[in-house]
Amino acid sequence: MIRELIIETPGQGLHEITELVRAAADDANIDEGLCTVFVQHTSASLTIQENADPSARHDLESWLNRLVPEGDALYTHTSEGLDDMPSHIKAILTQVSLSIPIVRGRLALGTWQGIYLWEHRRRPYTRRVVVHAGP
Amino acid sequence: MIRELIIETPGQGLHEITELVRAAADDANIDEGLCTVFVQHTSASLTIQENADPSARHDLESWLNRLVPEGDALYTHTSEGLDDMPSHIKAILTQVSLSIPIVRGRLALGTWQGIYLWEHRRRPYTRRVVVHAGP
Amino acid sequence: MIRELIIETPGQGLHEITELVRAAADDANIDEGLCTVFVQHTSASLTIQENADPSARHDLESWLNRLVPEGDALYTHTSEGLDDMPSHIKAILTQVSLSIPIVRGRLALGTWQGIYLWEHRRRPYTRRVVVHAGP
Repeated sequence: MIRELIIETPGQGLHEITELVRAAADDANIDEGLCTVFVQHTSASLTIQENADPSARHDLESWLNRLVPEGDALYTHTSEGLDDMPSHIKAILTQVSLSIPIVRGRLALGTWQGIYLWEHRRRPYTRRVVVHAGP
Repeated sequence: MIRELIIETPGQGLHEITELVRAAADDANIDEGLCTVFVQHTSASLTIQENADPSARHDLESWLNRLVPEGDALYTHTSEGLDDMPSHIKAILTQVSLSIPIVRGRLALGTWQGIYLWEHRRRPYTRRVVVHAGP
Repeated sequence: MIRELIIETPGQGLHEITELVRAAADDANIDEGLCTVFVQHTSASLTIQENADPSARHDLESWLNRLVPEGDALYTHTSEGLDDMPSHIKAILTQVSLSIPIVRGRLALGTWQGIYLWEHRRRPYTRRVVVHAGP
């Protein structure tokens, strides 16, 4: 089963998509299986992180922004904006696909795990995420 | 086929789980398929690395500890201990899920590849890993 | 369906394998499914990145080389060459496996996404990549 999601990101940061992915996995009506999430972009990515305390996500964002700053003299790929090349680097350091088992009919996330679409560009974007669920 | 593994980590470092995953994949009795490993935590992660010379794993640990030190003034998420926020960052830089093909009835790891559960917290933890194998 | 690819890399850098993976996925003749790519090495890895402007890939390479330089005094695993330990670190920061949905009979890559085998060693190597496609 395939579900194509269109997600409007409000700008740079971690945007939770757990419920969208869970709904897609539930619709597959599978007792035991695998759910795979794939983002069709190279300047946004996926991650699974703590969904309890928002300060953890704040620090992930700050840390990654410091590791991969805008305006680095190393960049030659600068024609698409100051935030473009950092976005590509952040994308390769995080995930383009995530696979989560389905156990007893439910997505087998840990207690504190949430699924996030990580927008690396500054302005809002329309992002496409594809969810596959199978036995 | 789903197998839920409970793994007691002895503390920070790379703990090999290759044989546990191989046993789960073998039990699925599949000639050609896919085996997916998923960790249900946000302060431990998965990686596939060289299983020959332990010095490579030692250096991976040292390098990541230097890149993501404890006590960084940037962290605001500090209530769960000095090693907590570094653990979340290390987790997003490595893997929450790994998918390995099954070829001719066996997990198709390369000659030098081992599967590791990477404990990022300092003290021992009980960690849950879910293995899915299907055709 | 399993396809085993043998790829000769010309040396360090991002080598596109999109068409090889697409051909393997096409051969599976699946309308809706999942295609997984797995690299059987610990000093080469996989990534999905922009396949339009080569300057983006040039900058990814330069940035990662600066983050993980050769000759770092931290390394103790030095017997296999100056470029060996950096290769292992680069491999754990990028991907050993990638899973891409198959939608309407085609690999569901985004418009600008290409699949790359990332050679981290300096000299040419023969690399093995396994592709699995299933419903």
